[in-house]
Amino acid sequence: MEKLKCIVSYDGSQFSGFQIQPHKRTVQAEVEEALKRMHKGQAIRIHSSGRTDKGVHARGQVFHYETSLHIPAARWEKALQALLPNDIEIIEVTSVSASFHARFDAVEKEYRYYILNRDKRDVFTRNYMYFERDKLNMEKLVAACKQFEGTHDFTTFSSARASVKGSRVRTLHEVNATKTDDVIEIIFRGDGFLYHMVRIITGVILDVAKGKLMPSDIESLFKAKNREKVGMTMPPEGLYLWHVTYKEND
Amino acid sequence: MEKLKCIVSYDGSQFSGFQIQPHKRTVQAEVEEALKRMHKGQAIRIHSSGRTDKGVHARGQVFHYETSLHIPAARWEKALQALLPNDIEIIEVTSVSASFHARFDAVEKEYRYYILNRDKRDVFTRNYMYFERDKLNMEKLVAACKQFEGTHDFTTFSSARASVKGSRVRTLHEVNATKTDDVIEIIFRGDGFLYHMVRIITGVILDVAKGKLMPSDIESLFKAKNREKVGMTMPPEGLYLWHVTYKEND
Repeated sequence: MEKLKCIVSYDGSQFSGFQIQPHKRTVQAEVEEALKRMHKGQAIRIHSSGRTDKGVHARGQVFHYETSLHIPAARWEKALQALLPNDIEIIEVTSVSASFHARFDAVEKEYRYYILNRDKRDVFTRNYMYFERDKLNMEKLVAACKQFEGTHDFTTFSSARASVKGSRVRTLHEVNATKTDDVIEIIFRGDGFLYHMVRIITGVILDVAKGKLMPSDIESLFKAKNREKVGMTMPPEGLYLWHVTYKEND
Repeated sequence: MEKLKCIVSYDGSQFSGFQIQPHKRTVQAEVEEALKRMHKGQAIRIHSSGRTDKGVHARGQVFHYETSLHIPAARWEKALQALLPNDIEIIEVTSVSASFHARFDAVEKEYRYYILNRDKRDVFTRNYMYFERDKLNMEKLVAACKQFEGTHDFTTFSSARASVKGSRVRTLHEVNATKTDDVIEIIFRGDGFLYHMVRIITGVILDVAKGKLMPSDIESLFKAKNREKVGMTMPPEGLYLWHVTYKEND
């Protein structure tokens, strides 16, 4: 058996998320179906770095799988792509050691959230950016980002529905935002993310950028450890799983 | 009765083109249905600057219609938008003189064609740009563009199926291309365009950029007046009706 690591990009707008679910179109189901066809009907399970929700996109999602087929890693990319729909794109397939695990070996993940901030909606980006008509103050927006950097208990900023066993302490290595024309890009790099964490934090960052909250309010929100203290979970169309980083020896 | 001029943007990827057709989802059908609802069941016909084909996009398509409703032009935009799907966006509605006609009064149209020129496909732009893996030489590409400027008989560069009564002579005021990162934008501005003309010309421009044709070959292609002398009609996803210009007094 050989273990392969695959980097994949997908347009989440037509998927009910990454993870396989009965009677739903999911990325995992499409990839496993393609692998099953390559393995002459044998079911092959893939293991991802983590789920993405309905409507969330990926530039660099990672999964691994094991195979008995003797295909050079470089050929897997085209072989798999040929059996996949055009909203999934295989970026790279590489051979990895038997101990590699796409989820447990990830040392950092990067997410990005895109916002179109202008008066008029845009039909061409409606599934790829969040549309915000209210004027966002970039200075306040960046100041809010910085409040989330470092090691914190993110209970306030994760879904109360999430059944996390253990700590909700995570470390964000970078939270930053830039604006190019009408598009705001917010980057989140961290050692781990709780359920809905990026989308809830982005909502708070926008509240600061609109003047509804002060950047200094964020410290007391962390202390409250209560999801109900903050606003809405931002919609999925602006969110991208951008990159997953692994230990060097992988 | 009041006559209104409407500028509209649409994502062509989920439409069978602009023009109404039985049992097909078209832009005209969606807009006329919205107008019918506003007019309590009365059918309202819209008249566009011209059709766009299945899959072709618009940033600035124009149509006109007549109404007996007493709504200020500025309110029409929101009223109409509220009844339209989110792949159609009303940009502007203005009151025009009774003699205005969206098709016959147009003095210039601008189309743009977008090409993603790199090794890897991109899931996020698959419906919005043509993907070209072959390396395109920009110097040759721009030189080819320039061959199409001016007044010519465009018979070779229009669909043989088009039933054009009268002349196939048109004047292109500008044909030019620029590249930003991996994206090539080709702009066409002219007094009129024949069926498939932009898509056929773009195919020839790419043949020059790939070294299959010389820019100087284009002159003899014009003279041949034969559609069969040139290559494929480029696919619709890269094409945008960008802007329609009217006489100043409109």
